[in-house]
Amino acid sequence: MDIATVNALPYEDFVDILGNVVEKCPIITAAVWSGRPFLSLAVLEAAISEFIDALPESGKEGILRCHPDLAGRDLQSGSLTRESHEEQAGSGMGALNSGEASRMARLNQEYKERFGFPFVICARMHDKENILRQLSARCQNERAVERARGIEEVKKICHLRLQSLVLTDNKL
Amino acid sequence: MDIATVNALPYEDFVDILGNVVEKCPIITAAVWSGRPFLSLAVLEAAISEFIDALPESGKEGILRCHPDLAGRDLQSGSLTRESHEEQAGSGMGALNSGEASRMARLNQEYKERFGFPFVICARMHDKENILRQLSARCQNERAVERARGIEEVKKICHLRLQSLVLTDNKL
Repeated sequence: MDIATVNALPYEDFVDILGNVVEKCPIITAAVWSGRPFLSLAVLEAAISEFIDALPESGKEGILRCHPDLAGRDLQSGSLTRESHEEQAGSGMGALNSGEASRMARLNQEYKERFGFPFVICARMHDKENILRQLSARCQNERAVERARGIEEVKKICHLRLQSLVLTDNKL
Repeated sequence: MDIATVNALPYEDFVDILGNVVEKCPIITAAVWSGRPFLSLAVLEAAISEFIDALPESGKEGILRCHPDLAGRDLQSGSLTRESHEEQAGSGMGALNSGEASRMARLNQEYKERFGFPFVICARMHDKENILRQLSARCQNERAVERARGIEEVKKICHLRLQSLVLTDNKL
């Protein structure tokens, strides 16, 4: 699908197709539809970023809280969104050995207790060793730093999800 | 569940239980968790309203666009959220005769083409005749009026969903 096709979508199809580029936040996709037509995929992506940046800090925390834990209960119960499932599987989250799994569970819990939102990282850009290392390191940050860092990761995830759905000019 | 129990919930349970008080917008529930503890259900509800009111107009339109049509394709395909299904069924949307169904479909389409978001009404407060009457009348409004009116209805729906989940002081 190219950007011209995206621009011609009624909002219902736009939200059906692109509604999960920010995990479980179809309101964001649905909001930026108001700003169509988009000159390019990069412009659509920028509109999403600007919407996120304009939210109050509680709203940014809200976005993070809509994300599942890595290798957490949603992965185990099979209730991840399709996109999250693919991303977590691709980075080896479904194939942790028991030591890695218990370390991940312990660090996820520590992170959530410290910050009040989950550890978010663009899993497609990392392997499991790297994710565990970053999770451990990021547990030491300040809350505001981690909120901003989590939102940066949300935008990276969004970027890759958009790229998988919409052809960029380079690919046309 | 009383408000003290709600206040003690970790964010994951808070979002699991209350995440759909605004249809398909768990980010809103997830955001207001930052403001706990809530002195009463009314205070929690006010926090949700304030979050919505602080969104840009595109964000309010985004909320409306996360709502299904009344008696629309999601009802027919069985893909409504549990809450929407109960509300639509309760107001007779699942039992329209063929004349009512075609009138509803035509007016829904007219409304969406005119405004770029769906007709939202607190179905639990109306029967099918009244809903059809209001839909027809509201098609004539200005866009900004309808956006504000739709958000008022979102808040009424949220009020009733909250009441069904959390005990008010009166009920304790």
